[in-house]
Amino acid sequence: MALIRMDHLAENLKVNLPLYIIVPEPGAMRGIPVRERKVLYLLHGLSDDASAWSRFSTIEILARRYGLVVVMPSVGRSFYIDQPNGQAYFTYLTQELPRYLEDVFGIQPGREKTLIAGLSMGGYGAFKAALLRPERYFAAASFSGVLSMDIWAAHASDQRQTEFELLFGDLNRLPGSEHDPSVWLERAAQNKSVLPRLFAACGRQDDLLPTNLQFKSRCQSLGVALDYHEEDGRHDWPFWDRQIQRFLGMVLEPEE
Amino acid sequence: MALIRMDHLAENLKVNLPLYIIVPEPGAMRGIPVRERKVLYLLHGLSDDASAWSRFSTIEILARRYGLVVVMPSVGRSFYIDQPNGQAYFTYLTQELPRYLEDVFGIQPGREKTLIAGLSMGGYGAFKAALLRPERYFAAASFSGVLSMDIWAAHASDQRQTEFELLFGDLNRLPGSEHDPSVWLERAAQNKSVLPRLFAACGRQDDLLPTNLQFKSRCQSLGVALDYHEEDGRHDWPFWDRQIQRFLGMVLEPEE
Amino acid sequence: MALIRMDHLAENLKVNLPLYIIVPEPGAMRGIPVRERKVLYLLHGLSDDASAWSRFSTIEILARRYGLVVVMPSVGRSFYIDQPNGQAYFTYLTQELPRYLEDVFGIQPGREKTLIAGLSMGGYGAFKAALLRPERYFAAASFSGVLSMDIWAAHASDQRQTEFELLFGDLNRLPGSEHDPSVWLERAAQNKSVLPRLFAACGRQDDLLPTNLQFKSRCQSLGVALDYHEEDGRHDWPFWDRQIQRFLGMVLEPEE
Amino acid sequence: MALIRMDHLAENLKVNLPLYIIVPEPGAMRGIPVRERKVLYLLHGLSDDASAWSRFSTIEILARRYGLVVVMPSVGRSFYIDQPNGQAYFTYLTQELPRYLEDVFGIQPGREKTLIAGLSMGGYGAFKAALLRPERYFAAASFSGVLSMDIWAAHASDQRQTEFELLFGDLNRLPGSEHDPSVWLERAAQNKSVLPRLFAACGRQDDLLPTNLQFKSRCQSLGVALDYHEEDGRHDWPFWDRQIQRFLGMVLEPEE
Repeated sequence: MALIRMDHLAENLKVNLPLYIIVPEPGAMRGIPVRERKVLYLLHGLSDDASAWSRFSTIEILARRYGLVVVMPSVGRSFYIDQPNGQAYFTYLTQELPRYLEDVFGIQPGREKTLIAGLSMGGYGAFKAALLRPERYFAAASFSGVLSMDIWAAHASDQRQTEFELLFGDLNRLPGSEHDPSVWLERAAQNKSVLPRLFAACGRQDDLLPTNLQFKSRCQSLGVALDYHEEDGRHDWPFWDRQIQRFLGMVLEPEE
Repeated sequence: MALIRMDHLAENLKVNLPLYIIVPEPGAMRGIPVRERKVLYLLHGLSDDASAWSRFSTIEILARRYGLVVVMPSVGRSFYIDQPNGQAYFTYLTQELPRYLEDVFGIQPGREKTLIAGLSMGGYGAFKAALLRPERYFAAASFSGVLSMDIWAAHASDQRQTEFELLFGDLNRLPGSEHDPSVWLERAAQNKSVLPRLFAACGRQDDLLPTNLQFKSRCQSLGVALDYHEEDGRHDWPFWDRQIQRFLGMVLEPEE
Repeated sequence: MALIRMDHLAENLKVNLPLYIIVPEPGAMRGIPVRERKVLYLLHGLSDDASAWSRFSTIEILARRYGLVVVMPSVGRSFYIDQPNGQAYFTYLTQELPRYLEDVFGIQPGREKTLIAGLSMGGYGAFKAALLRPERYFAAASFSGVLSMDIWAAHASDQRQTEFELLFGDLNRLPGSEHDPSVWLERAAQNKSVLPRLFAACGRQDDLLPTNLQFKSRCQSLGVALDYHEEDGRHDWPFWDRQIQRFLGMVLEPEE
Repeated sequence: MALIRMDHLAENLKVNLPLYIIVPEPGAMRGIPVRERKVLYLLHGLSDDASAWSRFSTIEILARRYGLVVVMPSVGRSFYIDQPNGQAYFTYLTQELPRYLEDVFGIQPGREKTLIAGLSMGGYGAFKAALLRPERYFAAASFSGVLSMDIWAAHASDQRQTEFELLFGDLNRLPGSEHDPSVWLERAAQNKSVLPRLFAACGRQDDLLPTNLQFKSRCQSLGVALDYHEEDGRHDWPFWDRQIQRFLGMVLEPEE
């Protein structure tokens, strides 16, 4: 495949940011231009940026296997939300970026051609997009995702408390707020016919396991289908590389 | 504008190469998607690659002024020809790359939307494409271009002789061969109605000035229109940065 | 010169960011390794990142002329301050980055080998570093810099008010605070013997001109030497490209 | 780790090329600066360039595990030899590049800190460097390497014949020439006390398996120690990703 590293100034972010995109190379185009291909939005974690998936996983090999266009944005430590300071990352992810891909590549994939996935903070972002904009994605995945807000209250003494309060507001009010995956889930559960296929994976040695179990349990009580996978593993790239393979293998057919 | 750095494996080159492309950023799209824009192929010189124009000139500012998509390929020291070793750079430039741009960006510009320009070896390549494929480009420019083959015979003792013989064959037979700009010119002159607008510039302190004067004289004797510009200047980036501005200013209208 | 694009995770920023560095290429090394060269920290403006100076100016040509290593960090919209959310950009710029350059390149330039400059928000950052850490830099430049805090109070109704309040705190209390260039200047004026050479330039058609005039006036009343330059010009790259040339021409000798 | 993408003009190649280098990030420096670290030269295959190992393997994770600096040059389709056209890739790899790394990073590793490895054409290059410059490397690896010249004669009708003749000369005279790994091996065998540790791996479904078996047999008859590994596998990245892990695990101790 061909790897695109792009520097662009997003309007909703008001800042220049790298954007990475994988497209087929000339010899792998097989008569299917980029604008007709399936698109995977692939989201990074808290301390990473657009370069992470390319550098630390073998996503470009997977992209070739499935003939995918893979779009990897940079969002800093924003949790993919519209920040109080005016940098609107969720709007960027769900509105500006798709429109920009259409303007630049002619990509305008229907729901049946759009997937979204992410790791850790990116799992949070992927499920937020999938549950609040279910008409957009046919499948979504969270790997080691932050899938419950109780974790913040539990970590109130954490050094990151101030950072997250500036981002989310009062952390004690997070559960039940618009930032709470449970709330997204409840909203999505009201219209199960348009739910994307959901996949979540977490390692047994990952501190975020409880948030995943909580999310899984919440899905069960709401009757929302979730492909949940647990295995020995930590919060690291070997785990995520295995899970992106697992997820794509479940929802896509190899092209080659 | 947004700068794309792309790594791709070209079929005709059989090797992975960088490709740089400038497209508008979200806030500068003005409702005109990439696929509807004018496209400038911008070619590098002998020891450069795709990164050169971006690093050493202010092309990205010019691209914004004119709303241009700028495509900057890498061709090594190939003189943009189909090399004897099978790396077919001219085919890449004039066939594979346009088709790839269509496959990736949906770009399929008509003649009235396509320009080509280059510096030094890139001036040679730009004029070769423009004169042998005149139906493709509405304007073409050579800055400090290698525009006559007599120069090689004159430099027969040069240390680069072996390199160029491996590339072009017997240097004494170059004049009058398919690699000779005069030959392209004669061919193009047979059908003046489809000639692109031609612009050539060379600095008075540039060793390549004689090749430019020779080309200019050949144009005159064949009745081919050439915008020729000469000014004090050397074979360097400040000269090329001025000339690309001059050329675009002549053939395009500013967008902003 | 050679252009380095580096992706690295800064400890004080807790996020992966691009860092651009210009070093000589093999043929331009002239026996002076990177670790013995002068270093210019070159700072971007509000909506840019590390890629801006390379893409929009001809800095790489200037770097060659003066044999400079040029270090271009990314700081988002942080104003180069230690943000309340824990992302400590000033600490990154003045402590982590120099130490990292030493660890990676062996660069440990003395004061007589270190310069700092920036545009707009980067002018603010460059002067903050130069005035609060005067023992580090022998020269500093602000191009179209934000050089007075009164501007914020004046723009209280501006849409950016919330963003800047989250960054700086109460904007009405900015004048006289640690974020006020006048305060840095007063502190620096107490020890004039270690002041870096200061250069400021602003275009006559730039909205930030009043902040520059105010800073200039403040310098005069404090007896701090300032090379101040004003000319017709706007808040744009052609102006900054001219000023970086002017600044380097004043304080450095060409190598070639 | 931090990933450096560098554009530089090599003197021996006379062309601008990408060079990728992995160094530790600030938080992984552990008090050991780049100039004191072990260095792995990691070479790409026939149709790749410097970006390949970073994009298609998880080398950056391995670099972190072992605290390695990884240097990944671009050499086109040169087979890492000094080409007849004057582009001297072997000189670049073994002389210019090490000197440049010293000039830029202060890296001047002794033999006990230098490794070299490569895949396919890169295995050929790595073993050529290791066997002809054995005083430079303490270990060398070939993954799916081209390790015998008989293969070319066997493929005389191949479409690549012309390309390789222009590169190597008469293919029938390759066996026994300076381009023949057997010849390097014989030369190296004359001074076994300074031989690097050699590792070769090839997949059982790889067309290059015979060249590896031939090399292995030649080592045995010459009494040269070779760690040879064979397993089910093809000429692809999953195989190379496994083998680079195997090789580094054999010759290095993890840092973390």
